[in-house]
Amino acid sequence: MQSYPSYLLENAVNQLAKLPGVGRKSALRLALYLLRQDEQSVQDFAGSVLMLRQQVNYCKHCRNISDTDECAICQDRTRDRSIVCVVETVKEVMLVENTGRYRGLYHVLGGVISPMDGIKPSDLEIDSLAARVAAGGIDEVVLALSTTMEGDTTAYYIAKKLSGLPVRLTTIARGVAQGDELQYADELTLGNSIVNRVPYAK
Amino acid sequence: MQSYPSYLLENAVNQLAKLPGVGRKSALRLALYLLRQDEQSVQDFAGSVLMLRQQVNYCKHCRNISDTDECAICQDRTRDRSIVCVVETVKEVMLVENTGRYRGLYHVLGGVISPMDGIKPSDLEIDSLAARVAAGGIDEVVLALSTTMEGDTTAYYIAKKLSGLPVRLTTIARGVAQGDELQYADELTLGNSIVNRVPYAK
Repeated sequence: MQSYPSYLLENAVNQLAKLPGVGRKSALRLALYLLRQDEQSVQDFAGSVLMLRQQVNYCKHCRNISDTDECAICQDRTRDRSIVCVVETVKEVMLVENTGRYRGLYHVLGGVISPMDGIKPSDLEIDSLAARVAAGGIDEVVLALSTTMEGDTTAYYIAKKLSGLPVRLTTIARGVAQGDELQYADELTLGNSIVNRVPYAK
Repeated sequence: MQSYPSYLLENAVNQLAKLPGVGRKSALRLALYLLRQDEQSVQDFAGSVLMLRQQVNYCKHCRNISDTDECAICQDRTRDRSIVCVVETVKEVMLVENTGRYRGLYHVLGGVISPMDGIKPSDLEIDSLAARVAAGGIDEVVLALSTTMEGDTTAYYIAKKLSGLPVRLTTIARGVAQGDELQYADELTLGNSIVNRVPYAK
């Protein structure tokens, strides 16, 4: 067990070590780095994190992170408002946006159903999705969830919730990734990609 | 260039990405992690870092980090006060302490002389070391500095500063590390370890 020369240092190391992917050794390195910075820099650092947590807003339509109560994507009148892409978190909104291949709106669930982690459907923004679809004007809901057990469970639950509503439910294509060698693709992925084959586009 | 859905998020990511070893992708992951924590946790996190920077003390004798103006090591009357180990930073104090093989005091320089990084001798606690030695009661000063160009330069500068003072100046042994295969040792290390050979202890 490491002994620290100062309680303040030990406390900061304990806090920094809570960050995902940061061990105690890295935490000490970060703490000593912060100690070397001028006081204003450390104030800016601590303040930015605290302000993010305290003042962040979530878009009233799609639950995306936003500085106001309506996010920039929902405010953008050039986007196709008839299609909603359902994602787990804000991170996936950014990932899909970065592809530059999607011009519809989003709905951020806040996670996926995971009994292991104690995440129930009611912890997620599924009811608000159903309400949004029920309000009308949405032709298609695209599920862009992880292709994991939890993602599949969540997709199934959403499909049940939306059944009966006049909306087309789609999911992102699953198949062999761009640049992958076929010999290294797993059987399930390869099997799915054969069953769900699409017309060859020249 | 990544576009963020919120200025608060972007600001926090920018601040987190300043940490050593944290890229923009990791910074986003950290920011979203902090967003998921309850507000009190984030307050504790930000507070611990800010308190460390604002309230930390340095020991008036050895410049080690301390909660009071005299560190626990300098306060410990069972330690050998006639020997002082000179290290670069607080981290090296902790490293040497962890070996459990040293029972003397320390002197923390705050870095090494590095013209490349603009660190001059006057930026370091070298004058305070000389004053401490001049005040008497110290028989030996052990230099425990990195075996780099900067460490060697600093050692040379300290040796000049302390010349004329009635103190024995030593440096940590350099040689083949415990567990190293000789065939992989570099020439300089191997050469030094032959020149500075010691009696074989059975």
